[in-house]
Amino acid sequence: MSQPQRVVIVGGGFAGLTCARSLNGAGFDIKLVDRRNFHLFQPLLYQVASGGLSPGDITAPLRSVLREQKNIQVLMGEVTGFDPAGQRVLLADGEISYDILIVAAGAESHYFGNTGWEAYAPGLKTIEEATEIRRRIFEAFEHAEREPDETMRRAWLRFVVVGAGPTGVELAGAISEIARDTLREDFRSIRTEEAEILLLEGEPRVLPPFPPDLSERAERALIGLGVRARTGVRVTSIDECGVVMNTPAGEQRIEARTIIWAAGVRANGLGRTLAEALGAETDRGGRVLVNPDLTVPGHQNLFVIGDLAHATGPGGRPLPGVAPVAMQQGRYVARNLKARLEGCAPSDFHYADKGTLATIGRNAAVADFGRIHLDGFIAWLAWLFVHLLYVVGFRNRLLVALQWGFQYLTFNRGARLITGIFHPARPEGRPALTTARLAGEAAASSTRADATRSD
Amino acid sequence: MSQPQRVVIVGGGFAGLTCARSLNGAGFDIKLVDRRNFHLFQPLLYQVASGGLSPGDITAPLRSVLREQKNIQVLMGEVTGFDPAGQRVLLADGEISYDILIVAAGAESHYFGNTGWEAYAPGLKTIEEATEIRRRIFEAFEHAEREPDETMRRAWLRFVVVGAGPTGVELAGAISEIARDTLREDFRSIRTEEAEILLLEGEPRVLPPFPPDLSERAERALIGLGVRARTGVRVTSIDECGVVMNTPAGEQRIEARTIIWAAGVRANGLGRTLAEALGAETDRGGRVLVNPDLTVPGHQNLFVIGDLAHATGPGGRPLPGVAPVAMQQGRYVARNLKARLEGCAPSDFHYADKGTLATIGRNAAVADFGRIHLDGFIAWLAWLFVHLLYVVGFRNRLLVALQWGFQYLTFNRGARLITGIFHPARPEGRPALTTARLAGEAAASSTRADATRSD
Repeated sequence: MSQPQRVVIVGGGFAGLTCARSLNGAGFDIKLVDRRNFHLFQPLLYQVASGGLSPGDITAPLRSVLREQKNIQVLMGEVTGFDPAGQRVLLADGEISYDILIVAAGAESHYFGNTGWEAYAPGLKTIEEATEIRRRIFEAFEHAEREPDETMRRAWLRFVVVGAGPTGVELAGAISEIARDTLREDFRSIRTEEAEILLLEGEPRVLPPFPPDLSERAERALIGLGVRARTGVRVTSIDECGVVMNTPAGEQRIEARTIIWAAGVRANGLGRTLAEALGAETDRGGRVLVNPDLTVPGHQNLFVIGDLAHATGPGGRPLPGVAPVAMQQGRYVARNLKARLEGCAPSDFHYADKGTLATIGRNAAVADFGRIHLDGFIAWLAWLFVHLLYVVGFRNRLLVALQWGFQYLTFNRGARLITGIFHPARPEGRPALTTARLAGEAAASSTRADATRSD
Repeated sequence: MSQPQRVVIVGGGFAGLTCARSLNGAGFDIKLVDRRNFHLFQPLLYQVASGGLSPGDITAPLRSVLREQKNIQVLMGEVTGFDPAGQRVLLADGEISYDILIVAAGAESHYFGNTGWEAYAPGLKTIEEATEIRRRIFEAFEHAEREPDETMRRAWLRFVVVGAGPTGVELAGAISEIARDTLREDFRSIRTEEAEILLLEGEPRVLPPFPPDLSERAERALIGLGVRARTGVRVTSIDECGVVMNTPAGEQRIEARTIIWAAGVRANGLGRTLAEALGAETDRGGRVLVNPDLTVPGHQNLFVIGDLAHATGPGGRPLPGVAPVAMQQGRYVARNLKARLEGCAPSDFHYADKGTLATIGRNAAVADFGRIHLDGFIAWLAWLFVHLLYVVGFRNRLLVALQWGFQYLTFNRGARLITGIFHPARPEGRPALTTARLAGEAAASSTRADATRSD
């Protein structure tokens, strides 16, 4: 009896996990390695960032998902390198040998070389980034509530989202709903509806990957939500108190205490590490160029899939780093490997583009199904349906559906806790907050006994 | 028209929040200050720590709870001191004046002076501590899965809970269920049922606040769950790799990589700060001694309630730091203040002890209702019912009930994601993990091609 081949999958995201699940029952000995113990449903990260869902609602423990597949072992570890000659994956604290290697390590936020910006403008690719964004959004209102200085308060109530792709649009829409609906009755000094949400985009229109008519409808929906989109502007500088952007009219600074980065992702560093080890090519975003069968040129036993891969689609353009591409590639590689086992020649990978969706807020979304373009409520229903369908795990589906129902009916976002250390604003040179400036002073018409107390 | 009196409540936990809610409609101008933006349902923290619930499920945003009470403003801030003469509460970045002050800042984990232990043995009083414990529990199994050395592996699979009060017992029971049920099919190298769970207690029996017969039933339930309780032992030292304890037979060391502290709480540091400012007395745990009407002696406008207060109960013994005491005290102070408004003389506080509950695992709990002692399944139902009833907010009740139902039916704990930075075990001087030692080697009977590969 011959030995089953050892397949190592690096990454438990859409690509890696789908591949692992599709290899169910196949005659391989499979190891799936990931730095995390869970699969993350990234399309709903913005919901964690806006306090609508908890991290546990959009994650599924990898072991739980794969528990019935006895030929798969999940290993939690950090991949640090590759040894193609020795056919080994190197970990921070060990190594794993392979016969077949599938690298699906995904993408990370990309600041175009401005590494200092990361501290001021978190991205939205991981759970921790999502909870950090959540903290900053809700803390901003808390700071505004206690801020006596008008200019400072407006800076706390100003939110800048850099990048108007689907992620940026979804976030901007969510922040708007937070300000206008969720928190409306919650504060006494401030009127949260006065929050300004700015969406900055370098391209000439929002949602650049979408057809122009849907970009236009999206922009109208955003305006309806009170989000101000500035297109054709490029951010040149980010600091703790705002951004500087290059506009057609020259440089302009925006004072805003909450800045979120949705302007770019690039391949995980493992892409470059792998390419160097293999003598393979990467594109500008660090993605590894792959053959039509998703193998690395010159390495028939080595696949790269998902956001880490630069696979050529129709018209010679690279396939986008989206979940459906990753999932189809994962399934394809599994089919490919099974075909090889049977001695068949596997076919090339062809991406079946079933459409793209982006939500903008309650009742509003845009959906590009090729010849059919939808927007508004019906697109939003489609968006809901598709995302619920693909969330991994019945438990999660139920929890997400329930919380969405609740959120829709009540406008409330129940998961908006601010975790971590609270950073009290320590204003230098600003007067201490005293009774005379506390809530209701501005709004209340009656004179207060406090007014007789001196500071 | 006379000015409403300014009431400041420090703390949005059981005592402070209940007080605030009970003051609904009363003619006061109320400020509630907390470092966090949410109320935490502490009795279910152990469920977050064991991956059964998400943090958002057991927290309720304070603003949301109090949104309809227009005479209450919630302020997020850190109280740093008190000025009783000037009637001010001092914040890290401001101050608030008061006519009446209610301090309900709660309790924190207490290491009896061994501040170094905190890093090795997290307590369970905050959301962050709960997610940290969760991380350590589930990472321990991950490390064990990859650990080739037998002794090290057993240390990873050994869990020590220090303190067998309700918190410790609930945690120990939960870890046992994780090991025996939740994770049973999830690993390939290890058998999670082999995990050892030790519960250490200085008193002669587990659950010391409970009557002896219930302590005994609890201990039997724990044994049934595979938890080994050691009573009459005191921990003298804790480090990254284990604990040392003083037993009747002398000193003994236990090698365990996961240690959880449930052995003591003391009043928040604000208790001492307040007492110093007022010239008031505190007990050994830092709790402020209060009059029968919960005011601080000599200060009729200053109340201390909840875990921060040392209030005398029947028989001259101090009331315990439990949720029902805090809630009743909160309600009482509100009644007291309303009575004063009407010119009535308020009565003293009397705690109505409706009973105590502690759960041990699926289907098992103990309940002390005075003359009625319950255990087993019916006590567990009572525990479920009471906790569901008191969780704040309909949304939370629904989410908690649903996830409990799911957990009960499937043994699965869906919220068991490991967040934060993964700490790969970097063993000094230990051999790197190689193919030969990977999963299934021990279990698989077939010889593997890998065996021919050299390290």
